[in-house]
Amino acid sequence: MANSIYRASILQSYSQLLFQPCLSNKHCVPKKTNLLCFASSQLNPARSEVSFCIGTHLIPHPNKVERGGEDAFFVSNFKGGVIAVADGVSGWAEQNVDPSLFSKELMANASSLVGNLEVNYDPQILIRKAHAATCSKGSATAIVAMLERNGTMKVASVGDCGLRVIRKGQIIFSTTPQEHYFDCPYQLSSELVGQTYLDAVVSSVELVEGDTIVMGSDGLFDNVFDGEIVSKLAAHSDVVEAGFRCSFLEENSGDEANRWKA
Amino acid sequence: MANSIYRASILQSYSQLLFQPCLSNKHCVPKKTNLLCFASSQLNPARSEVSFCIGTHLIPHPNKVERGGEDAFFVSNFKGGVIAVADGVSGWAEQNVDPSLFSKELMANASSLVGNLEVNYDPQILIRKAHAATCSKGSATAIVAMLERNGTMKVASVGDCGLRVIRKGQIIFSTTPQEHYFDCPYQLSSELVGQTYLDAVVSSVELVEGDTIVMGSDGLFDNVFDGEIVSKLAAHSDVVEAGFRCSFLEENSGDEANRWKA
Repeated sequence: MANSIYRASILQSYSQLLFQPCLSNKHCVPKKTNLLCFASSQLNPARSEVSFCIGTHLIPHPNKVERGGEDAFFVSNFKGGVIAVADGVSGWAEQNVDPSLFSKELMANASSLVGNLEVNYDPQILIRKAHAATCSKGSATAIVAMLERNGTMKVASVGDCGLRVIRKGQIIFSTTPQEHYFDCPYQLSSELVGQTYLDAVVSSVELVEGDTIVMGSDGLFDNVFDGEIVSKLAAHSDVVEAGFRCSFLEENSGDEANRWKA
Repeated sequence: MANSIYRASILQSYSQLLFQPCLSNKHCVPKKTNLLCFASSQLNPARSEVSFCIGTHLIPHPNKVERGGEDAFFVSNFKGGVIAVADGVSGWAEQNVDPSLFSKELMANASSLVGNLEVNYDPQILIRKAHAATCSKGSATAIVAMLERNGTMKVASVGDCGLRVIRKGQIIFSTTPQEHYFDCPYQLSSELVGQTYLDAVVSSVELVEGDTIVMGSDGLFDNVFDGEIVSKLAAHSDVVEAGFRCSFLEENSGDEANRWKA
């Protein structure tokens, strides 16, 4: 039951982007919350192609600062760009297994396989091959997004990492977490009982110039409302400054620690 | 921060589907709430292809029963199947324009254009051509989903109609509404100030046998929590009975009318 007739004039074009490619962010030092990747699609005017401009920020949970946290990620400028996040399942610590080892090795393997011919720029196949190559004991949730230069972003996700696409100040695309039950997400594992690439949710979305993509572990999306993410992003125009953009999370993790998932 | 290690064994295959194709549902008579389409992907074992099994239900808002409501829809078995919903913008009634005329003509045009070569089974192009062919005064939100037989479901949406994909009792894919401000969604219009197919959010998701798709106008998703949709669906195994599945909505619209959007 839509009510109001839209009467305003249409914005036929997007604002000029100020974003610059940023594939390695020297500001990206571990701080104290969970992982974010900010990416924005940028039009190549000469070829009408898009590619990611990427800023990243890794902030371990306050209780996990010493070991650098359990999240891992990689970014790549292959084709339109690749962004990926993995979140090590913390329950492994009870078995004296460092939960970060699996997620870090998974992302390292994925990074090295991005250009593999068999992967064929398919995020689900990248997950399959990276998982198969990972030898560490443990398990992790994982999400991979690959941007074709024509604007199609393919996403494959196992578990509760997430991704949002923000266009003109609104979220227009979201992934949905998968879990077996509360706090037990679908997960790629060193054990046979875990999930595989076959359990990934595979989706895609057509991006346009100026879209902003926020990817992160559940530590972000469980603790920061989508509206907060959008409103904080609205105050910035450059994903290169992603580290600075994340300051609101650091504030939250200090003063409003109760909002962090237990 | 995923916590629990998954230890249960994996279900490697889905339950046998009992769903039957249902492209015209004789139970689908106007009742008293908003529009739903239930669709399930069904594997063709001989060719490893999927197609929709479809059940529909159109329940006008209690205040709009006399004119049959402002929603419209169509379903088609072309290729893997097509499902679409449009919701007439009610504000037109203040200008003595029947809000249902635009949505109904839009869906009628879309239905006739599904096989058009220029549409090329692209839901965004279908919206473009159906919108261009619509002569009625008014405006409407609209969503179209087209299933390729290989399992790829393409979705194009302008405004706040919605779609959910439910797999193994969980929502694994959701569309996100677009609006200018509260209660004023993006809308296809007879007027120049409205949106066009270029404003559509275009996405896709890879379906597997047994997935259930729920598509509807905002009247559904604004008034029924996703969890309620999932739990009610869990009690049924046949989209042919979609009309019966909707009974919980009718109950809500009677006893809990305050939950309906004003």
